[in-house]
Amino acid sequence: MTAQTNPSRTADIDTIVERLQDMLSDDLTATEALLIARAKSPVDVIPDLSGYIVSAGGKRLRPMITLAAAHACGGANAGTHALATAVEFIHTATLLHDDVVDDSDLRRGKKAAKNVWGNNASILVGDFLFARAFTLMVETGSLEILRILSDASSVIAEGEVHQLAAASRTDLPTEEYLAIIEAKTAALFEAAAEAGALSAGPQGEQYAAALASYGKNLGLAFQIIDDALDYGGTTSVIGKAVGDDFREGKTTLPVIIARRRGSSEDQDFWDRALDPEQQAEGDLAHAIYLIRSTGAAEATLVEAKAYAELAKAALRTLPDSQWTKALSGLADFCVSRAH
Amino acid sequence: MTAQTNPSRTADIDTIVERLQDMLSDDLTATEALLIARAKSPVDVIPDLSGYIVSAGGKRLRPMITLAAAHACGGANAGTHALATAVEFIHTATLLHDDVVDDSDLRRGKKAAKNVWGNNASILVGDFLFARAFTLMVETGSLEILRILSDASSVIAEGEVHQLAAASRTDLPTEEYLAIIEAKTAALFEAAAEAGALSAGPQGEQYAAALASYGKNLGLAFQIIDDALDYGGTTSVIGKAVGDDFREGKTTLPVIIARRRGSSEDQDFWDRALDPEQQAEGDLAHAIYLIRSTGAAEATLVEAKAYAELAKAALRTLPDSQWTKALSGLADFCVSRAH
Repeated sequence: MTAQTNPSRTADIDTIVERLQDMLSDDLTATEALLIARAKSPVDVIPDLSGYIVSAGGKRLRPMITLAAAHACGGANAGTHALATAVEFIHTATLLHDDVVDDSDLRRGKKAAKNVWGNNASILVGDFLFARAFTLMVETGSLEILRILSDASSVIAEGEVHQLAAASRTDLPTEEYLAIIEAKTAALFEAAAEAGALSAGPQGEQYAAALASYGKNLGLAFQIIDDALDYGGTTSVIGKAVGDDFREGKTTLPVIIARRRGSSEDQDFWDRALDPEQQAEGDLAHAIYLIRSTGAAEATLVEAKAYAELAKAALRTLPDSQWTKALSGLADFCVSRAH
Repeated sequence: MTAQTNPSRTADIDTIVERLQDMLSDDLTATEALLIARAKSPVDVIPDLSGYIVSAGGKRLRPMITLAAAHACGGANAGTHALATAVEFIHTATLLHDDVVDDSDLRRGKKAAKNVWGNNASILVGDFLFARAFTLMVETGSLEILRILSDASSVIAEGEVHQLAAASRTDLPTEEYLAIIEAKTAALFEAAAEAGALSAGPQGEQYAAALASYGKNLGLAFQIIDDALDYGGTTSVIGKAVGDDFREGKTTLPVIIARRRGSSEDQDFWDRALDPEQQAEGDLAHAIYLIRSTGAAEATLVEAKAYAELAKAALRTLPDSQWTKALSGLADFCVSRAH
């Protein structure tokens, strides 16, 4: 545990991600070009809104997973680039719809697209990008890839609806929380890695299941850390907005653990404060205090680390290469975000 | 023109649709079963909401086109049933999103799903059904069918965004109106017919282009009539809600023609009344009066008939059969709805 609070470890981790970006430089250039070219439309709002959210940054984590998975199985090709673009389009479409559903005002540090173009344009441009994702996947020529991503897309929507239905439940069981994040987040990581492997050709088929397992566990680790970061992680982190999930009344792992470990007074606090209509000033600060003082922040991190380790373990069936090392590093990176 | 106001002609037309339903009886039974089976999910809201809108009726016009197109090219099979279900799921997903975008309170004579489950559930269940549509299409085993429907889906979203961007324009050129309805409505009719043909096998490839043309022109006729019906068609029709487009300020063909033919006073009326914020009591009645008195209702019907004739003409390259007759009858049915 001490190693992770060591600044040199953090520097190493940043280097790992930058090295992966360098290793994928040509592939990422091709993908970025497709992200612009395939959002083109005679209806200006579409490329405008799509370009706004796509160029707002984002780490391109999912396309990087697709590309690196393909390389780990023999190499990326034009089909892999189309697939990586499709994966990012599906992710972007879900962000556009999520911002409408959650009524979020900020995305990637900028005004949410819905606050610039309105809810309706965000819904419809999301639909457009989702459809374009499938056109791009047809270009891979693989029905199996289409099956994987269409299945993942319905699972994502299921996860979102499940989360919506569970919104008011502060007594959400851990297992149900995990089922929600496995559907809404990990399913796309899983599909991105599995389909990336398949896009590489025959060798990919051999390792597709291992990479699917890598992607799923990485996605779980990523979302658990994301949920921890909403309460500031284990230390204060600059540049990340805190309290969005809390204000929306989402029951996430840090809350589940803090509530479970808390006094009956603490439980009453959570039951009231996670109802957006009953929130009062100072509630977020108290929530953060409870999450730290009950050890829920650390326990959440431990849970995320367990999934990151499972992700790394899944890579062990693949032949060692710079790509498996980089994918393994990505798992460390996801967890390191909490510090 | 006289034949169409003759009641016996109307009776014939109803018979045509009922006969097509009889001819497709087994196929429609299989499709209805898939519409339920493939909306299943452990997250209850999904089958509940989906079942609510799917069972609210609707004419199943698009699946019927897919199934009849396949029969006209040699026969429908399990792949055709999956495709017909996918087409209806895509249609249902667009209805769910449209009702949120247009803030419509009624759909198929019932409360809109968003008024029962909320906007958020309608957006996300729409996404779910859209994803399931692609899973169903993978089962046809045809990348070409997936290409046609994914392309059509992005065109539909383009049409919806275009309509949104054009919403405040009462001086919308006829050509731009036609481009919008070709995208938002006719593209799915076109894809339903073309893909239906291809699902039948080799003979389908020969006639796919003709059936695509049939579908596109039928879709244009259908939407033009729908837009006329929003002002009561050429006579009062019982059971169809009137004035939805007007209240939303949509510039449709009857309005374009009435405004073009009207006095400058009439034009001022349209410019004010189609701004939802400026509408006053009695405006809808006056709009209907202007559409009738300028002959815009009749002219709209003439335009729809022209497209219905083009649809029927496209069928002439196919060998005559009970199926081409039935598809031709469907074109007459679409136009007859205005009386």
